[in-house]
Amino acid sequence: MNKKEFYNVAVAGATGVVGQEMIEILAERGFPVDTLYAFASERSAGTSLSFAGRDILVEKLEDADFSNIDIVLGATSAALSRAYMPKAMKAGCIIVDNSSAFRMEEAVPLIVPEVNGHLISSHKGLIANPNCSTAQLVVALKPLHDAARLKRVMVTTFQSVSGTGKEAIEELLDQTKAILSFQEVKTRVYPQQIAFNCIVNWDCDPVSGDTEEEVKIIEETKKILGDPALKVSATTVRVPVFRSHGESVSIETESKLSINEARALLSDAPGITVFDDPSRKIYPTPLDTVGQDNVYVGRVREDRSTENGLHLWVVADNLRKGAALNAIQIAELLIA
Amino acid sequence: MNKKEFYNVAVAGATGVVGQEMIEILAERGFPVDTLYAFASERSAGTSLSFAGRDILVEKLEDADFSNIDIVLGATSAALSRAYMPKAMKAGCIIVDNSSAFRMEEAVPLIVPEVNGHLISSHKGLIANPNCSTAQLVVALKPLHDAARLKRVMVTTFQSVSGTGKEAIEELLDQTKAILSFQEVKTRVYPQQIAFNCIVNWDCDPVSGDTEEEVKIIEETKKILGDPALKVSATTVRVPVFRSHGESVSIETESKLSINEARALLSDAPGITVFDDPSRKIYPTPLDTVGQDNVYVGRVREDRSTENGLHLWVVADNLRKGAALNAIQIAELLIA
Repeated sequence: MNKKEFYNVAVAGATGVVGQEMIEILAERGFPVDTLYAFASERSAGTSLSFAGRDILVEKLEDADFSNIDIVLGATSAALSRAYMPKAMKAGCIIVDNSSAFRMEEAVPLIVPEVNGHLISSHKGLIANPNCSTAQLVVALKPLHDAARLKRVMVTTFQSVSGTGKEAIEELLDQTKAILSFQEVKTRVYPQQIAFNCIVNWDCDPVSGDTEEEVKIIEETKKILGDPALKVSATTVRVPVFRSHGESVSIETESKLSINEARALLSDAPGITVFDDPSRKIYPTPLDTVGQDNVYVGRVREDRSTENGLHLWVVADNLRKGAALNAIQIAELLIA
Repeated sequence: MNKKEFYNVAVAGATGVVGQEMIEILAERGFPVDTLYAFASERSAGTSLSFAGRDILVEKLEDADFSNIDIVLGATSAALSRAYMPKAMKAGCIIVDNSSAFRMEEAVPLIVPEVNGHLISSHKGLIANPNCSTAQLVVALKPLHDAARLKRVMVTTFQSVSGTGKEAIEELLDQTKAILSFQEVKTRVYPQQIAFNCIVNWDCDPVSGDTEEEVKIIEETKKILGDPALKVSATTVRVPVFRSHGESVSIETESKLSINEARALLSDAPGITVFDDPSRKIYPTPLDTVGQDNVYVGRVREDRSTENGLHLWVVADNLRKGAALNAIQIAELLIA
């Protein structure tokens, strides 16, 4: 994009959990913002947000005038992204979209800067940000793939409710309070009780039984690693945790990697903190990674049930690396 | 054992979560109990318990006189089992021990009745009850192993705190209350906060990094299925759930099983409820299985990352099939 000293940046979906995190991270990282535009639904329009000490009026996305905007950070649903992002592109904006709407389109680069940031120049006005579970997974896989070539990846997720949004955070809180005070538990966002329970996303394909989230992890991982032949499987579970996702990952590689080789490769890779020392009981929990930028990897173990197998426990803040931070890292590549 | 109309039964560790569940299940299933003896630590001795409408005095395990007892149900720690079970055996009791103390001894049958109940006659005075995570896993694996021969089993657990005991249940409750009222969170039982977090058992082997729980699942599964060559891997995670364990299980079989064939085999097998219909959003959550005897299996899906691969989501009440119920089912085999 045209090099400038400062850019007009819009956040679409500015009042959601990811949108709010984007605005915080823009300020925190000193992104060269000239004017910040905050777009949201009619319900939030007219309220105001704080950005780097300034008050920003929230405007209705439906009425957005994109003509003066350089970069749009999309933190809306896939349906809203499909509705408004083409309009923004037509107005000349470059879009970094966090929704699933365009991720698998061939012409759209799907970027995690540490993994495939070099694709930034191939964009045609829109860059997609991956699913939260995929983003943290590929950061951890990349150095191992480069060194020993991955053949198979299996992941079971422990996903926090903030991945679903603000209402899911409230639901976990409300249900927990209801249980502790012996009141009736109500469900609104999730079809099953999430407090003190583990549930599965309910958007299942009725034939394969795979959830949309599982399909996203499988397809996006292959696209980001640039390896359509890679074998990936996923089981996604929502747990009663507010923030940060855990992933139990098992990999099989072409060439053998010892535990220590894998730890060394991970330590040297960008965006990763190796937090792994069984002798001192060190491994990452979701709570450890809240507000952190890096993907934390621990419990690197040999998987003796196969040749060249390793287990990893991969934890990251789903609102940061899994969403807002990655989007802003993409925007930083755009203006670099 | 010698056939009688009624048996004198002792529960060692009678005031713990598993011991209490054993006493309830003995009454519920009408086990032919003559006198019930309740043994526990000094702290609980002198209190009383209710069993089938009778008041039972809790006696000190240290002072237990086993001479008049036919069957001892062990619900103590491995250390206490090692200390007292040999004494009980010497007194002529038959022991069903829920601890890990004797499970892997060659002369000790490790029994899940639906899987290897025929081994009951091989006992030499002591039968071991498996680890909670293993028990529910092998019930689900057995019909698939018989039909298509398992080559590899990978499991990631979502374990509830009741598997750790009464104090862990209190810890989850206390920490949750503290967080909701903005108080300081204290840890006593687990080294990390369990409320709104996912943690890993910290009893790690400093070299392999495997936890004791993971090693138990691997070794006990092979022993119970009678297949030392079976490849098993495990990752165990503790989640903020009070009761019932979930397991994300991936298997590879010698011969191909379709989703529907696997569902049919599971439906026909003893001790299993198939709760699986993606078109109607049906699958089991931990909450669904609390107080249930059966192992619930759902989310039977093809694992397209390997040949002949299937995913299963296996959920059961860890205090019932995972512990107390299985022990009493073993005792029922003993007196059959």
